Amino acid sequence: AMDGAPPPTSPPGLSAYVAVSQLLGLTLLATTGAWLGRYRGGVAWHSPLQFNAHPLCMVLGMVFLQGDALLVYRVFRHEAKRSTKALHALLHGLALVIALVGIIAVFESHRTKGIPNMYSLHSWCGMAAFVLYFLQWLLGCGFFLFPGASFSLRGCYKPQHIFLGIALFILSIASCLLGITEMLLFKISDSYSHFVPEGILANTLGVLLVAFGLVVSYMLTREEWKRPPLAEEMALSMDFKTLTEGESPGGGS
Amino acid sequence: AMDGAPPPTSPPGLSAYVAVSQLLGLTLLATTGAWLGRYRGGVAWHSPLQFNAHPLCMVLGMVFLQGDALLVYRVFRHEAKRSTKALHALLHGLALVIALVGIIAVFESHRTKGIPNMYSLHSWCGMAAFVLYFLQWLLGCGFFLFPGASFSLRGCYKPQHIFLGIALFILSIASCLLGITEMLLFKISDSYSHFVPEGILANTLGVLLVAFGLVVSYMLTREEWKRPPLAEEMALSMDFKTLTEGESPGGGS
Repeated sequence: AMDGAPPPTSPPGLSAYVAVSQLLGLTLLATTGAWLGRYRGGVAWHSPLQFNAHPLCMVLGMVFLQGDALLVYRVFRHEAKRSTKALHALLHGLALVIALVGIIAVFESHRTKGIPNMYSLHSWCGMAAFVLYFLQWLLGCGFFLFPGASFSLRGCYKPQHIFLGIALFILSIASCLLGITEMLLFKISDSYSHFVPEGILANTLGVLLVAFGLVVSYMLTREEWKRPPLAEEMALSMDFKTLTEGESPGGGS
Repeated sequence: AMDGAPPPTSPPGLSAYVAVSQLLGLTLLATTGAWLGRYRGGVAWHSPLQFNAHPLCMVLGMVFLQGDALLVYRVFRHEAKRSTKALHALLHGLALVIALVGIIAVFESHRTKGIPNMYSLHSWCGMAAFVLYFLQWLLGCGFFLFPGASFSLRGCYKPQHIFLGIALFILSIASCLLGITEMLLFKISDSYSHFVPEGILANTLGVLLVAFGLVVSYMLTREEWKRPPLAEEMALSMDFKTLTEGESPGGGS
């Protein structure tokens, strides 16, 4: 049945969205770097600048890499599912490590300066996003990457995994917006209301974060852009269904 | 074909989610009222308390009513589509009017106190949410409520309308979180880091806003909870398809 099949093509518009999302993601990182470098003295670890590693790591890990990890099933739609899944888990794992470095940066910086932790709405939302993201990663590996979970269990968990994944991505972006607002009101509270360049630049970073979230979410929720099962996966799932209790993993999703 | 049909039932779990969402929505309003009443002197229009009308109106209009307007197709799933659509437009219209009052409150309060407008990330995100929400309402009325738009045009616009609707609801909640953070850092910047009750209460309001957003978004995106077309709508759409160019509105959605 595979003989003479036309080479796989991407649905129209998807490549343009992929390009825009990556351009936005890189602009996010550049804008964060410009803010910290131009107005906040740069980034360094064993120094009073340690705090600045926090925003940089969080934007890189919890936004850019998390977003790209969500997109792999759209971008690599014609690769084998097993490899795409491994890449998905790997990118999320990398995002988690970088976010952990960012969290250590703010806790160490607070300890050095004698500032209390975990009192602000930013810290509550951000910590909730990180902890749930880590748990979701563990559950995802347990259910989908390692063998053991049954076909029907995977089918039940999959829609919850997808919903929570997008929700945590959005919560991460919201936490970044809160962090930007906090940082501006701590550092330039006197001049922020006079439309100083630093305030405009940081607000623009916030707008770019919202735009990245919108573009990625749109790509993830567009029905025609979902990854189609490959021909051999369909055959496999058919065999599996015959072998097992006859439940379909797509039934509830 | 309708004779002897069983009475329509709601899918399992939906009623529980409706109850939780409404309980959360009312708790949101009560918590906002408690914050303003207990710690911020209450709400009044022609007074220095005019500002306090802003958070109350925005939480009521842009979060609670907007959220409930999004839910009507799930809650009133067995009513005629025409009435549900009218309720959807009406609730969004009411939300817009209340949000407008809230925006007037902050602009008038700023003018009285000589505070500049529209410099903060909160104001940028909030104003973008409000303006786009108003445009989406106008477009929605034009496409879906008034006659004129063709069957196929409605089918094209519908998925965009749904995506933008959920996105603006989430952006509205994110703007509220930014507003809470701003207000706390303006009013209790010295004591916020000491876990004072006002800070804890306002942070809790933020957590409740996130929870309301999560529950409503989950209800909206769950495939089995989507409003099924009534039997007579199916027949009508079939007739319509025969009469017109044979395009299906569900084809692209």
